[in-house]
Amino acid sequence: MSDYSLHRPLPASEVAAWDIETDVAVVGFGASGACAALEAARGGARVTLFEMASGSGGASALSGGEIYIGGGGGTEVQRAAGFTDSTNALATYLKMAGGPDADSAKCDLYAAESLSHFEWLKAQGVPYKGTFVPGKIIEPATDDTLIWSGSEEAWPYSAAAAPAPRGHVIQFEGWGGGRKLVDILERNVREAGVDVRTDARVLALVTDGPRVVGLVVRIDNRDRFVRAAATVICTGGFCMNDAMLRRYAPGTLKLTDPIGENDNGSGILMGMSAGGDAIHMDEFFTTCPWIMPESLVKGIFVNSRGQRFINEDCYHGRVSRTMVDQPGDRVWLLVDNAIFARPIDLARIDIAAVGETWEEVERDLGLPEETLAATVQTFNRYAAEGRDPIWQKAAKWLKVLDDPPFAALELRYPGSYFSFFTLGGLSTRPSGEVLDRGGAPVPGLFAAGRATSGLPRSGHGYSSGMSLADCTFFGRKAGESAAAAARIMQAEGIRELA
Amino acid sequence: MSDYSLHRPLPASEVAAWDIETDVAVVGFGASGACAALEAARGGARVTLFEMASGSGGASALSGGEIYIGGGGGTEVQRAAGFTDSTNALATYLKMAGGPDADSAKCDLYAAESLSHFEWLKAQGVPYKGTFVPGKIIEPATDDTLIWSGSEEAWPYSAAAAPAPRGHVIQFEGWGGGRKLVDILERNVREAGVDVRTDARVLALVTDGPRVVGLVVRIDNRDRFVRAAATVICTGGFCMNDAMLRRYAPGTLKLTDPIGENDNGSGILMGMSAGGDAIHMDEFFTTCPWIMPESLVKGIFVNSRGQRFINEDCYHGRVSRTMVDQPGDRVWLLVDNAIFARPIDLARIDIAAVGETWEEVERDLGLPEETLAATVQTFNRYAAEGRDPIWQKAAKWLKVLDDPPFAALELRYPGSYFSFFTLGGLSTRPSGEVLDRGGAPVPGLFAAGRATSGLPRSGHGYSSGMSLADCTFFGRKAGESAAAAARIMQAEGIRELA
Repeated sequence: MSDYSLHRPLPASEVAAWDIETDVAVVGFGASGACAALEAARGGARVTLFEMASGSGGASALSGGEIYIGGGGGTEVQRAAGFTDSTNALATYLKMAGGPDADSAKCDLYAAESLSHFEWLKAQGVPYKGTFVPGKIIEPATDDTLIWSGSEEAWPYSAAAAPAPRGHVIQFEGWGGGRKLVDILERNVREAGVDVRTDARVLALVTDGPRVVGLVVRIDNRDRFVRAAATVICTGGFCMNDAMLRRYAPGTLKLTDPIGENDNGSGILMGMSAGGDAIHMDEFFTTCPWIMPESLVKGIFVNSRGQRFINEDCYHGRVSRTMVDQPGDRVWLLVDNAIFARPIDLARIDIAAVGETWEEVERDLGLPEETLAATVQTFNRYAAEGRDPIWQKAAKWLKVLDDPPFAALELRYPGSYFSFFTLGGLSTRPSGEVLDRGGAPVPGLFAAGRATSGLPRSGHGYSSGMSLADCTFFGRKAGESAAAAARIMQAEGIRELA
Repeated sequence: MSDYSLHRPLPASEVAAWDIETDVAVVGFGASGACAALEAARGGARVTLFEMASGSGGASALSGGEIYIGGGGGTEVQRAAGFTDSTNALATYLKMAGGPDADSAKCDLYAAESLSHFEWLKAQGVPYKGTFVPGKIIEPATDDTLIWSGSEEAWPYSAAAAPAPRGHVIQFEGWGGGRKLVDILERNVREAGVDVRTDARVLALVTDGPRVVGLVVRIDNRDRFVRAAATVICTGGFCMNDAMLRRYAPGTLKLTDPIGENDNGSGILMGMSAGGDAIHMDEFFTTCPWIMPESLVKGIFVNSRGQRFINEDCYHGRVSRTMVDQPGDRVWLLVDNAIFARPIDLARIDIAAVGETWEEVERDLGLPEETLAATVQTFNRYAAEGRDPIWQKAAKWLKVLDDPPFAALELRYPGSYFSFFTLGGLSTRPSGEVLDRGGAPVPGLFAAGRATSGLPRSGHGYSSGMSLADCTFFGRKAGESAAAAARIMQAEGIRELA
């Protein structure tokens, strides 16, 4: 009796007969899987794509369809808006964003090829209006293209890398262009002749010694055995798998709004079952959409001790991720009458206290005297001089908070809307080859997207569009590599081995 | 040609001949390996213990030989010193210390059996003088026994669990009793007839399907094949493996003083290679010995923004772990003339600034006005009332810092002495069975100590003696379980299968 699971590959010797034979098997039909399948097919491989849901999508289709692009003098959209960009600035920003173990090879490669990747996306039919929307926004409410989508203009990034806006959003009226992006990619995938199998849940890898030689897939309630010269895991992260979150990323446990569809970690587990290394599994992106309307950025955040903890002009997700690090179960955004605006309902941010003085707000929140009020006093003193020597918030966002009444807007865990997804996953080369714990490739196995630890490797450095940049670009690389590996195996006749 | 490594088990079918056959193979001769081997041998198993170094030791021998013990009314040492303790208080404390994914089953079992474990240790010949040393110390400079070794009296622990001192230190003059503890365990191990093989480096597990059936061990520069009904991994953590630290625990990268001998993560990697789950790999213990002399505890810590970040009367390791979370590359301990004392040389703590006023200290450190000085002012205001409403430092440690001159003692990374070791590792049942990523046991595989994620699961909750409690107690359990598993296999005749 064969015994296989996400945790245990099936030895090829126990496969009685192959139900499906293909060159490249791709698992997961989000953006990374679509791009991998597409490039593998264009590379001459027979490609079969398995998706557990009834259609394409994944977390990519739940996104805004925004991709982090720049470098090399700038895209035509950046240039039309008056910005220049450099490959070095992009690479530097990506490496800072990646944290202490940033994947330098991926950052450098992406920075070098980002412009040509933009051309590729357009060649697939992804439309861009070509227009820039200034200010700090989460996604355009319109069908415009370019936004500031990260911390480029904020300290410490601004001090190290020349800032440029790099969030390129698919032309789509309102939020949610990710679905349109995946639809366009799907159209290309089908035109390229990829054999798409939906409602097809992958149960296990099949291995021949150290080599991955296929998959077991449940289709129509029957286990099918798939032989593939190369397998590409594009199954997303594990934000929908509570047991994995608890064991690997307990920092997410107080957050309630995963961005995922079937992001159950299955591909990460399968990759590990074949010896693949999973790294930085504790890392996650989170954000609460607290910057809408934009005037709120002129407020200051304090933690449960009344202390500021970051320059609030950073990317909203960087600020939110740092909120989650604070002691206690809530933080407050302090605003005065001049900048007050009601946060969008989605954010689930309540007004916790209102007062004619900051001392009154402090007291209403139950804080000891000389905490929150002292923090505001010090902030105001320097803001009046147009500077923030403590957290380096840029002058354009500084406002003396001295126009009563004053309010504390409360962000709580759980309670407020903190979306999140995981950033840890399989260790891969830029080529998509999955690496084992000794740093050697697992033969026959590739991966891309949030099933890997890629460009967006640290929740504190994340910027909007980084994950889709990683999914689409390194999805393509993985597909190319898988097709090449299949060609080599064909040439060597190894395909006949199993 | 066989291809095996820490990352890839050798299939038993590829073993031409077994060089060594045993019931229970134990890997690693620190405290957990010694206890596992001992109980397995006493359980009737033939036991072979493999150690890569030339003798016993491991990180256990680099420790103070202190074990966290209590509950059940208290040990006779606790009672003689006037303390009572309860199993519930101990279990509650351990669970709080374990963080959001504390291993409740291990905490409850250890709390229930802690007193009998103390009796067992004494029965092995581990000497305890039976005396209590009051105050906040790291280890007794004398041969005394009992100390406050954690955060029991500090908020928030004190509010949830009745405090008692639980650090029981082996009778040994000065620091470093861990070597003596391991020597005593080794004597028992040898008397119990365990076959001890030193200079024996384990290279890979041997598997038969999902079952671990032995090991490959390098002895005298030759690979030996060891058949074992049960294998117990007691190889310690990975603080000496830079590549693993980078991939799994990058929070340690700014620390320079690992406590390890051969803690290279090899056992964790081997366990994963057989399907074992490794969890909470980002967690680590760290401490800087800043509490010597004790008067320094009356100082207050501020971060690079001049903010306090914890009640300084917590366990020195909890305070140190929280230091590492702070923004920037240093923190300062603020003291006045009344409590000033030069920190011990080992700590590598410098005096960064001295002033007649806190404003002068603030300026000398390059901090903006109204930051550090404001923090001290607020602290002093409440300390004068005998309370700390912001961080809940206990009244006995509160001192108004108003006796000039004032000083800022600087703790830097890197620079100051921050010892550290890793806390993440294989997922195990209290029995020591290694669990796979689906939560099922890996047949034939057991583990204990810092190769596992055990009682001390969170660096923020660690208390001295928790790791040795975990190593010795769950080492014993793993040895008992391995011997039982070997007996069952013998009864079933499965041993003849390979």
